[in-house]
Amino acid sequence: MNVIVWNENRHEKINPVVAEIYPDGIHGAIASFLQTEEIEVKTATLDEVEHGLTDEVLNETDVLVWWGHMAHDEVEDTVVEKVYHRVLAGMGLVVLHSAHFSKIFKKLMGTSCDLKWREVGEKERLWVVDPSHPITSGLDQWIDIEKEEMYGEHFDIPTPDQLLFISWFEGGEVFRSGATYQRGKGKIFYFRPGHETYPTYYHKEIQTVIKNGVNWVRGDNTPTPEYGNVDPLETISKNKTKEID
Amino acid sequence: MNVIVWNENRHEKINPVVAEIYPDGIHGAIASFLQTEEIEVKTATLDEVEHGLTDEVLNETDVLVWWGHMAHDEVEDTVVEKVYHRVLAGMGLVVLHSAHFSKIFKKLMGTSCDLKWREVGEKERLWVVDPSHPITSGLDQWIDIEKEEMYGEHFDIPTPDQLLFISWFEGGEVFRSGATYQRGKGKIFYFRPGHETYPTYYHKEIQTVIKNGVNWVRGDNTPTPEYGNVDPLETISKNKTKEID
Amino acid sequence: MNVIVWNENRHEKINPVVAEIYPDGIHGAIASFLQTEEIEVKTATLDEVEHGLTDEVLNETDVLVWWGHMAHDEVEDTVVEKVYHRVLAGMGLVVLHSAHFSKIFKKLMGTSCDLKWREVGEKERLWVVDPSHPITSGLDQWIDIEKEEMYGEHFDIPTPDQLLFISWFEGGEVFRSGATYQRGKGKIFYFRPGHETYPTYYHKEIQTVIKNGVNWVRGDNTPTPEYGNVDPLETISKNKTKEID
Amino acid sequence: MNVIVWNENRHEKINPVVAEIYPDGIHGAIASFLQTEEIEVKTATLDEVEHGLTDEVLNETDVLVWWGHMAHDEVEDTVVEKVYHRVLAGMGLVVLHSAHFSKIFKKLMGTSCDLKWREVGEKERLWVVDPSHPITSGLDQWIDIEKEEMYGEHFDIPTPDQLLFISWFEGGEVFRSGATYQRGKGKIFYFRPGHETYPTYYHKEIQTVIKNGVNWVRGDNTPTPEYGNVDPLETISKNKTKEID
Repeated sequence: MNVIVWNENRHEKINPVVAEIYPDGIHGAIASFLQTEEIEVKTATLDEVEHGLTDEVLNETDVLVWWGHMAHDEVEDTVVEKVYHRVLAGMGLVVLHSAHFSKIFKKLMGTSCDLKWREVGEKERLWVVDPSHPITSGLDQWIDIEKEEMYGEHFDIPTPDQLLFISWFEGGEVFRSGATYQRGKGKIFYFRPGHETYPTYYHKEIQTVIKNGVNWVRGDNTPTPEYGNVDPLETISKNKTKEID
Repeated sequence: MNVIVWNENRHEKINPVVAEIYPDGIHGAIASFLQTEEIEVKTATLDEVEHGLTDEVLNETDVLVWWGHMAHDEVEDTVVEKVYHRVLAGMGLVVLHSAHFSKIFKKLMGTSCDLKWREVGEKERLWVVDPSHPITSGLDQWIDIEKEEMYGEHFDIPTPDQLLFISWFEGGEVFRSGATYQRGKGKIFYFRPGHETYPTYYHKEIQTVIKNGVNWVRGDNTPTPEYGNVDPLETISKNKTKEID
Repeated sequence: MNVIVWNENRHEKINPVVAEIYPDGIHGAIASFLQTEEIEVKTATLDEVEHGLTDEVLNETDVLVWWGHMAHDEVEDTVVEKVYHRVLAGMGLVVLHSAHFSKIFKKLMGTSCDLKWREVGEKERLWVVDPSHPITSGLDQWIDIEKEEMYGEHFDIPTPDQLLFISWFEGGEVFRSGATYQRGKGKIFYFRPGHETYPTYYHKEIQTVIKNGVNWVRGDNTPTPEYGNVDPLETISKNKTKEID
Repeated sequence: MNVIVWNENRHEKINPVVAEIYPDGIHGAIASFLQTEEIEVKTATLDEVEHGLTDEVLNETDVLVWWGHMAHDEVEDTVVEKVYHRVLAGMGLVVLHSAHFSKIFKKLMGTSCDLKWREVGEKERLWVVDPSHPITSGLDQWIDIEKEEMYGEHFDIPTPDQLLFISWFEGGEVFRSGATYQRGKGKIFYFRPGHETYPTYYHKEIQTVIKNGVNWVRGDNTPTPEYGNVDPLETISKNKTKEID
């Protein structure tokens, strides 16, 4: 399996707090816990040519993990379009934290993806609400994160196909923190945690969820639908009538 | 309730078959069966200024019914954007037949909305698969249409929030013919039948479904979410600690 | 519309705290705010003959509201069976609070309907997560209840057809507090609040939700499916072959 | 992985047509194509002690495949109850064809599971409507079965969590032929084809679907929820107030 961890990699360059927590970038931290014998992980970042997502790279990618925050607008529409078509064609997509506002996620959702937020370093507790789902494998009933940014409802997304986690926040809000969607042949997993100023991606259970998510969104050898004008598979009585005429 | 029936109104102008079936346009036919004492129906078409969908018109519209086919690309992106925001803000949207490929529907779905099709005038039978839903009110177990265009699976849409009808086609295909979605505060109903060369919109049961659909997508006095940065509703322990420091 | 508010009416008889809050019983309190010119509301309780739910009563009932807690086991299976068939036939059902453990709800869900709970009188905040749904009409973004029993995830229910509310609890839990289901021709709305020792059913916004729920679950003139052996609607080629033989 | 293929095994004993098609029983035919190096497959039948489903057997079973038709009523309620609790605890369940009317499926669904049917040996075509789902892996866009029993809508099931296949029948009906559900920690896959008088379970693509289904319903190491009375995870302000008093 080929996985690309994409990161805009900007906070890391301008904010020493972030640089200290993630010396190899958020992408580096995520790539390092995803890498296994079965999973070949590479990274790509905003400032690379074509944001590191050339046709060649995308066509070989089974799962794309996306982190972005302050530079969503700098992602070129042509790249977004290519990623979009790859997802519909079966590439898995894991969307993390502030990438709720990325162009690719908004395009795939069809909504504003807006939400409430607050950055005071409060406690987040993610409750598993679907204990049948493989993405919850290896977890306990909930995950505690001592300090995170708050995201609160209403989260303006379509009704999730599957809702896996609901977050409780110390300040009084809740949030649908883990949700899956299918789009064409592609599967998408949105997972909330991961503000850049906290060491969330070193949290073992958060890593477990992201690993599970990558495995779950991976495509299978599912059928590729053909679209457009088609001949009938059965005899049409009206046509027969015409033939008789 | 204010309803706008929007139609590109092009086939009617260039194809005598369509003009004969729908002398007042498809919009005229639909408007005439929707009009009641409680429902004020107006029409709008592609060739009007701003396609007949000015801010003034849109802001007063409770439900927009959309029919388009050959000229989707001529619908201006600025108008699509305004309709999109009105839907998220609670305007109901009924999307008919070939409007599956309209800009507004594709934008709200986040998928290609592609499908198989064939135009030989075959029989379609729409089966009710959710007999609890108000949109099926007044119907029998199924609806027969003697001659229609075929639309076949795979229909590249997100998983419907509610699947109401499945079509059987004489030529061997099936189709998810009636589906609802929520987007923001808005409700959307997609309904398949209505090819321009058949008198489908004079069919009493098809009219019943569209009437029910218009009533169902109509918005209520539901809450308007606020988004962005918010203060905590409860005391944050970490902050208290800081204050003590 | 005919509505029956059913209550086991036991806490009221044995617990003076409950009797003081609800002198006419929980059923009396709910009935009094549901009653309007359009809605004829009656009540029924466990200790009546057939629990007040005779065939005659049930057959005329459009919507049944159910509250039970300490005496679920005393509800006769024959009555449960009759209510079940009425729901499948289109009677609306509103299930309140501890009725998550009622025989009828468990039978309709197919799961244990178990949950976490705690009774210390903590704060509950219900967040609207689907602002397109009529049941949220007239509400603000959230509802605060100063003192309630806590119900916490995992709530062992099937994936809701529509998830409307998520509760935040002071003690650190979350809960899917408002959920809808369709079963046959019937619609069901589960709504969490309403512990007997708190005056929750006098809370204006809670009343709004229950009123909206009653209106939403009400059945329409939807098709009644026929089941069993049926003749083909189209010619079967194999049969034709046989006829030729 | 331990799989049990359960079959009532009655038609095979009394109907020579069935006995000739399935000399080792339907269970034998299914078991033989499921068996691999990774999957240990055993069978169990109605006439065995406890229907072959003792506590010992059930506790070691990862996935149970169920086929029944003429003797649903002979399945003991105690065994149904045990299977039910095993599903909620994470055992996967694949329900085939006429087992739509089995006690265990009806109990897990909460509906009548009724449908239309006809037995004239007509053509069935199963269309894939979710090409993102692992259960469709290895398939083409549709599956043709030359002769099958017809099952038609309305199929009285809850809204599927995931709808994978829709069948087209020669006689004019459609059917939701492949559907998944989660119940507690358990996953369920219902798959329509497999009437006893046709060699459907020798059909390569039908075998592919059942193999995929068995793999998909298999449980993971997901969290086991605890239910009942719990202490707060956070400090409750009201309690503090009381303590101060």
